[in-house]
Amino acid sequence: MYMYYAVRVNGLSCKDPAAVVSDDFFFAGADKLRDTTSERYGYSALTVQIPGLNTQGQRYARVDLAPGAIFPPHYHPRAAETALVLEGSVYFGFVSSYPDNKLFAKVLSKGDVFAVPQGLMHFLYNNGTAPAALYASLSSQNPGLVLLADALFAGALPDDLLAKTLLTDKHTVDSIRANFRPS
Amino acid sequence: MYMYYAVRVNGLSCKDPAAVVSDDFFFAGADKLRDTTSERYGYSALTVQIPGLNTQGQRYARVDLAPGAIFPPHYHPRAAETALVLEGSVYFGFVSSYPDNKLFAKVLSKGDVFAVPQGLMHFLYNNGTAPAALYASLSSQNPGLVLLADALFAGALPDDLLAKTLLTDKHTVDSIRANFRPS
Amino acid sequence: MYMYYAVRVNGLSCKDPAAVVSDDFFFAGADKLRDTTSERYGYSALTVQIPGLNTQGQRYARVDLAPGAIFPPHYHPRAAETALVLEGSVYFGFVSSYPDNKLFAKVLSKGDVFAVPQGLMHFLYNNGTAPAALYASLSSQNPGLVLLADALFAGALPDDLLAKTLLTDKHTVDSIRANFRPS
Amino acid sequence: MYMYYAVRVNGLSCKDPAAVVSDDFFFAGADKLRDTTSERYGYSALTVQIPGLNTQGQRYARVDLAPGAIFPPHYHPRAAETALVLEGSVYFGFVSSYPDNKLFAKVLSKGDVFAVPQGLMHFLYNNGTAPAALYASLSSQNPGLVLLADALFAGALPDDLLAKTLLTDKHTVDSIRANFRPS
Amino acid sequence: MYMYYAVRVNGLSCKDPAAVVSDDFFFAGADKLRDTTSERYGYSALTVQIPGLNTQGQRYARVDLAPGAIFPPHYHPRAAETALVLEGSVYFGFVSSYPDNKLFAKVLSKGDVFAVPQGLMHFLYNNGTAPAALYASLSSQNPGLVLLADALFAGALPDDLLAKTLLTDKHTVDSIRANFRPS
Amino acid sequence: MYMYYAVRVNGLSCKDPAAVVSDDFFFAGADKLRDTTSERYGYSALTVQIPGLNTQGQRYARVDLAPGAIFPPHYHPRAAETALVLEGSVYFGFVSSYPDNKLFAKVLSKGDVFAVPQGLMHFLYNNGTAPAALYASLSSQNPGLVLLADALFAGALPDDLLAKTLLTDKHTVDSIRANFRPS
Repeated sequence: MYMYYAVRVNGLSCKDPAAVVSDDFFFAGADKLRDTTSERYGYSALTVQIPGLNTQGQRYARVDLAPGAIFPPHYHPRAAETALVLEGSVYFGFVSSYPDNKLFAKVLSKGDVFAVPQGLMHFLYNNGTAPAALYASLSSQNPGLVLLADALFAGALPDDLLAKTLLTDKHTVDSIRANFRPS
Repeated sequence: MYMYYAVRVNGLSCKDPAAVVSDDFFFAGADKLRDTTSERYGYSALTVQIPGLNTQGQRYARVDLAPGAIFPPHYHPRAAETALVLEGSVYFGFVSSYPDNKLFAKVLSKGDVFAVPQGLMHFLYNNGTAPAALYASLSSQNPGLVLLADALFAGALPDDLLAKTLLTDKHTVDSIRANFRPS
Repeated sequence: MYMYYAVRVNGLSCKDPAAVVSDDFFFAGADKLRDTTSERYGYSALTVQIPGLNTQGQRYARVDLAPGAIFPPHYHPRAAETALVLEGSVYFGFVSSYPDNKLFAKVLSKGDVFAVPQGLMHFLYNNGTAPAALYASLSSQNPGLVLLADALFAGALPDDLLAKTLLTDKHTVDSIRANFRPS
Repeated sequence: MYMYYAVRVNGLSCKDPAAVVSDDFFFAGADKLRDTTSERYGYSALTVQIPGLNTQGQRYARVDLAPGAIFPPHYHPRAAETALVLEGSVYFGFVSSYPDNKLFAKVLSKGDVFAVPQGLMHFLYNNGTAPAALYASLSSQNPGLVLLADALFAGALPDDLLAKTLLTDKHTVDSIRANFRPS
Repeated sequence: MYMYYAVRVNGLSCKDPAAVVSDDFFFAGADKLRDTTSERYGYSALTVQIPGLNTQGQRYARVDLAPGAIFPPHYHPRAAETALVLEGSVYFGFVSSYPDNKLFAKVLSKGDVFAVPQGLMHFLYNNGTAPAALYASLSSQNPGLVLLADALFAGALPDDLLAKTLLTDKHTVDSIRANFRPS
Repeated sequence: MYMYYAVRVNGLSCKDPAAVVSDDFFFAGADKLRDTTSERYGYSALTVQIPGLNTQGQRYARVDLAPGAIFPPHYHPRAAETALVLEGSVYFGFVSSYPDNKLFAKVLSKGDVFAVPQGLMHFLYNNGTAPAALYASLSSQNPGLVLLADALFAGALPDDLLAKTLLTDKHTVDSIRANFRPS
């Protein structure tokens, strides 16, 4: 274990090897149901915080979805993802790249695993009546996250660019955008 | 140059080194204005085809945009991009990742260069009155391309998932979707 | 998805992209208790078989341990590992490299996660009274597996080399070795 | 965008993400003819300075060549290169590795693109009557540059080593060397 | 050479390029016989210390073995290894991964070279009557080292885990362990 | 060990794992003095041929130099190099990149090690009266080799380009070139 006083790797400071303890490789609570009622889309993502994973090229998260909730279409700019269903039922899919835009999706139950290639857009949809939860593995320490709807509507893209993008009119764009911008 | 009969790297067959010629490293025509009038968004992307670039980790393209045309918000799952404006004027930008969704953009003129970090959503908009053209460099032999609007509306995502994603109703989703699906 | 007829990557043949289906990214049954009674050490490792993971740099497995069973000290020559406890209780640890040989270990319960840096020796021990199970994520498509006891005793290492290695005599070596070699 | 106060990556300090602006991804002037009359070989190379390219694995430059000027045989120790002709006409080539030493070269005009595999010796020669300019893309943030004539004659290589290298006598070596060393 | 005041790469501080000297790329004494009589296993490993190798992905060492001495079974978590015999005779081998545990080994003489794939367990045994020495090349700046016997017996692994691992009883484990722990 | 019938990696066919033998990881004779009297520059380079090194990212060679012989200035487009002197005395150096062209060099004796960063031009000169030999380690399976004098004079570079490059006249170029081209 290469750790030095005052050395920082990936923006994280490294501990003196003599001070490293077992808890630096440990995280508890990935089985705990999380309240998602206050979340915009009804999902919650909890990153597994393990200092000892620094430089090991991996990241993990628990994702909870209330009944009817979605983790809306998104992608990770620097990672592939694979997820295991821990509880409930979830419709999980990804769309292949241009020009095919082909949907690859399955309704998953507990114990099912689904994989998403590097960088492709994917989503989760809890179309059941019970809470659902997944354990996601990402192939990068710094996968990044882009929510497509936010990227399009929450930022400062010009209205006319968005209207052209969606092959629609500014009125429709504005009606959607209103929900992405706090008044 | 490591090339063998009957060996394929990245899906491309390798030539006998004795048969390799200068034209295997050459491409002509990246300065030619291309007709974009028949394109859906008014843009055209021409990949620079150079067999000798196999395994060198790069890809290049010329992009043309008619006046008023856009290269709609998109990303490359496996590459960063930098582009040089060859002709005209273009509004070029990208949006940072969740939760910031911050727009970084500039109106570019001939001779300007703009860079997009790996995997982030970016767009081009020719808001001038003359055709615009760019020369794009991508940091992967196989960058991939995802158009956000197509990924959301052209594939088989369920309507209710899309409505939830856009924080809107199915009627609005259907009105947009109609333009992305051939009748 | 870059897949071609007759192209093989990592020894796996690639499907025609038009023939790829959702099931190529899917695996079922990672929640199923597996019978480990017939196994030498009382553990069972089930690789998550997902063809679409080819080239994505990841591998996953479910590991079952009967009460009292161990997954004996081992390492993966080409991967770091992180595991989530799905059921039961397990003592999970790794030993740092020479000359420290320091033990980092925890008794884990359901929902706990533990990480092992690339290539270090680690082990599992179900010291509870109920079956235990984990979901392991490895940071390589081809992590490899070396069981230390097998590497030392099951192969053809000379007896005197082993005696010197263990700072003991050939008699002790032979007494251990007898259990690793079918008569 | 992973940027932290006081963190340095590749020797560059990272900005606070909140302080990053569009100009950090922008460079102007790659279309401007540059005066090369005071240059030893009659060429000028202008690096495209874009702070936001840090960690993205790319570098770009504009190269100007007066009529009759050369960018003498050189290589980049850590990059492949591809260049687009922006103006004029240029003879562009590279030589394959030992023992073939085969020349791959073309006379290029505006809009032509030529590629050089990683690390191979290449050159530019403006054999026209008008200024020529290229836009070069390199597949590394830190490609490096070695001019072969300088590496041989401008440094402190022993004369007899050089004479043996060139299969000639010290007198000839000295006559060439005189031009590479300020008196 | 990218070196900056106050920049640290891989935990090593980089020199000002103007202060770098030839000795930063030099190491003397890899031909010197080393006394190994005080060593536990009778071997000695001397790392070739060359500051200028930082970031070049290599490490080198001279290994001496007294007659009858061993470099006990070990592996490098992050490197492949190749070694050249400088003096004497040595039995050099590695064991393939689970479940084959196949021994690949040769008795080597001066001038012989043997290679070990990334991460596999290997050993040296001087079964001659004269001192032996090797020059080892490792494919990582930070290969790491794990001695299997130490990893099993020198750390704090529970006795019952070890007994189960070796398919033996605690008494045998304790008899071996006594030699690995200072009293 | 991932080896398959009919699979080729890096242009080499992989053996059936069951057919792999110890000799696939072995090479003999790196200590043998080689006759260099018939060589143009008086040096000889013998690649260490080890099939089992495929995919391990390393290459090795023995280099012999007659008294007064040189391995003329050259570089490896895809590797760093480190070499150990096995016999004799040799002046070993490299030149840093443009614009410094600074010489880093040492007279080495048996047991000395010298390192060359990735891609930089380096040379060997046996300025002693006895044969010299080195064992070179390269950080790539396919390092490549470019001899600067050959790259400049043995190929089809135009004479006037060479004259401009060397800041001399065509007559001097032709006098050198004559020695690089068989009549």
